[in-house]
Amino acid sequence: MVIVTASTLQVPIEICATFAFALSGLIAGARKKMDAFGVFVVTGVAAFGGGTLRDVLLDRRPFFWVEHANWIWLMLVLCLFSMIFMRNQHIQFTERAIQIPDALGLGLYASLGTQIALGLHLPIIICTLMGVMTAVFGGVLRDIFCNEIPKAFNDHQPYAVIAFVGGLLVIALNELNLSQWICVFVPAGLISLLRILAIYLEWRLPSWKIESNQ
Amino acid sequence: MVIVTASTLQVPIEICATFAFALSGLIAGARKKMDAFGVFVVTGVAAFGGGTLRDVLLDRRPFFWVEHANWIWLMLVLCLFSMIFMRNQHIQFTERAIQIPDALGLGLYASLGTQIALGLHLPIIICTLMGVMTAVFGGVLRDIFCNEIPKAFNDHQPYAVIAFVGGLLVIALNELNLSQWICVFVPAGLISLLRILAIYLEWRLPSWKIESNQ
Amino acid sequence: MVIVTASTLQVPIEICATFAFALSGLIAGARKKMDAFGVFVVTGVAAFGGGTLRDVLLDRRPFFWVEHANWIWLMLVLCLFSMIFMRNQHIQFTERAIQIPDALGLGLYASLGTQIALGLHLPIIICTLMGVMTAVFGGVLRDIFCNEIPKAFNDHQPYAVIAFVGGLLVIALNELNLSQWICVFVPAGLISLLRILAIYLEWRLPSWKIESNQ
Repeated sequence: MVIVTASTLQVPIEICATFAFALSGLIAGARKKMDAFGVFVVTGVAAFGGGTLRDVLLDRRPFFWVEHANWIWLMLVLCLFSMIFMRNQHIQFTERAIQIPDALGLGLYASLGTQIALGLHLPIIICTLMGVMTAVFGGVLRDIFCNEIPKAFNDHQPYAVIAFVGGLLVIALNELNLSQWICVFVPAGLISLLRILAIYLEWRLPSWKIESNQ
Repeated sequence: MVIVTASTLQVPIEICATFAFALSGLIAGARKKMDAFGVFVVTGVAAFGGGTLRDVLLDRRPFFWVEHANWIWLMLVLCLFSMIFMRNQHIQFTERAIQIPDALGLGLYASLGTQIALGLHLPIIICTLMGVMTAVFGGVLRDIFCNEIPKAFNDHQPYAVIAFVGGLLVIALNELNLSQWICVFVPAGLISLLRILAIYLEWRLPSWKIESNQ
Repeated sequence: MVIVTASTLQVPIEICATFAFALSGLIAGARKKMDAFGVFVVTGVAAFGGGTLRDVLLDRRPFFWVEHANWIWLMLVLCLFSMIFMRNQHIQFTERAIQIPDALGLGLYASLGTQIALGLHLPIIICTLMGVMTAVFGGVLRDIFCNEIPKAFNDHQPYAVIAFVGGLLVIALNELNLSQWICVFVPAGLISLLRILAIYLEWRLPSWKIESNQ
């Protein structure tokens, strides 16, 4: 994460994005009526699971959440607070409210993840997948812990696919020897924009031609 | 695990606890009518999954079960034996019988896991979470392999929460520069005691105020 | 994987086997009507998940799929192609057609995984389990991502059990100081043969004597 800290934009976006990812976990835990520990774990996994899995695969330490342990305390307070005060209408409001920061997170995490893997001189497709994993696998692990098929796998919305395309753009911009600021933030912005368009224009991924009785 | 081997108490408690965790996996596999391989994996994951996940995250090698490979042979024999001889009434008896050693395991594993992370100079909240993970994530992975929402996430019993409080006590005692023996075993005993009280007094964690039709 | 590259047999078998494992993931994703991203992930996990988990546990890098990143491109094309052209009858045909390469993969992966762990001087039971994990855990993770109890855990067919026996043979042959070619390929062939016999003769693992209402 060191590479682009010069940017003053990154930190607020990262906080918004991580917060949106965490809230998606909190809502998922609430819907399953989990207890305090379950909600805390699912919230943490949704926020930090993607980056952690990437770092385990790339053998990078320390993890983001070990270096910024204060975020964990904050998350703990957030979970306890929401268990006391959250009602049904808050869940519906929260789900709508996190769509924009979630799209920002998709863009920033996918671009940052791709850039980190590029710094390790890995093949193009691996770098792109590491970006996608950073952005998407928190949600995948969240859904596995909730005993659901991951939404990212079967809701037929363009989400990971947009992150994938954005990751390829990160690599193309690096090939042009542009500054890392541009290599990360231009694709991040594009991914976020496409994701927001995908939500409002209700874009859909093509589906299978096989029948359901299979 | 080297740090407190001076203690003559640790080894028998650790054997009882690992055995209790393993039996919880064996019962879960039996209830799902798994075959020999499935039962073996779920038993192994319940016994060693928490410590293994902690060690993967902390990048520690070798794992406990690699250093003590004889335990795996023992577990293999246990699984085969139980598939032949276990009947319904044994399952019910086993579930009651493992409550005490499981509580001992919760205490010892949470305290040891916290102490190990403290030895790596990690932040307080990370150390505590590593302790909780050591004690609880074997059961979480067991339930995911059985395609269930982890019991530790939604049974609203104080289990991980007690381990969390005990982990904070481990850290407080370390701050006082007490011997490692005291830092591990006093919190371990307290966690076990609270857990046993929680079972017999039927303590419950607070639940959500949101409605089910969400 | 370096150890037996002298062999001209290994590469074609490995390609067939990985292809068969990947197709099992593709079919699983198709049956769950996943979108392009879901199918791609489940296909990739089925093909490479077992070896990746082994390498994470043994702390080996780089992963097979990072070194051979072209396979990922190929897999991506395969997934997109099959989403457009696959119909129900193709699924049934594919399931029958992959039984033989899947059996070859079981043999080769289990033997190679065991041999790799032996090279790290790990205990016998750990080496054998690493072999089984290499061959079987791709399918286990595939089923967890599809929100099913892993087929390898409860279909009562001899699959992992055969890989386990073959792994023990790898170790026995190494004890006799035979060439690595023999140590890997004789058990690999035997595992594949036993697996094919198990399919055609419909061998079953023994089941529990406990009742279903448990």
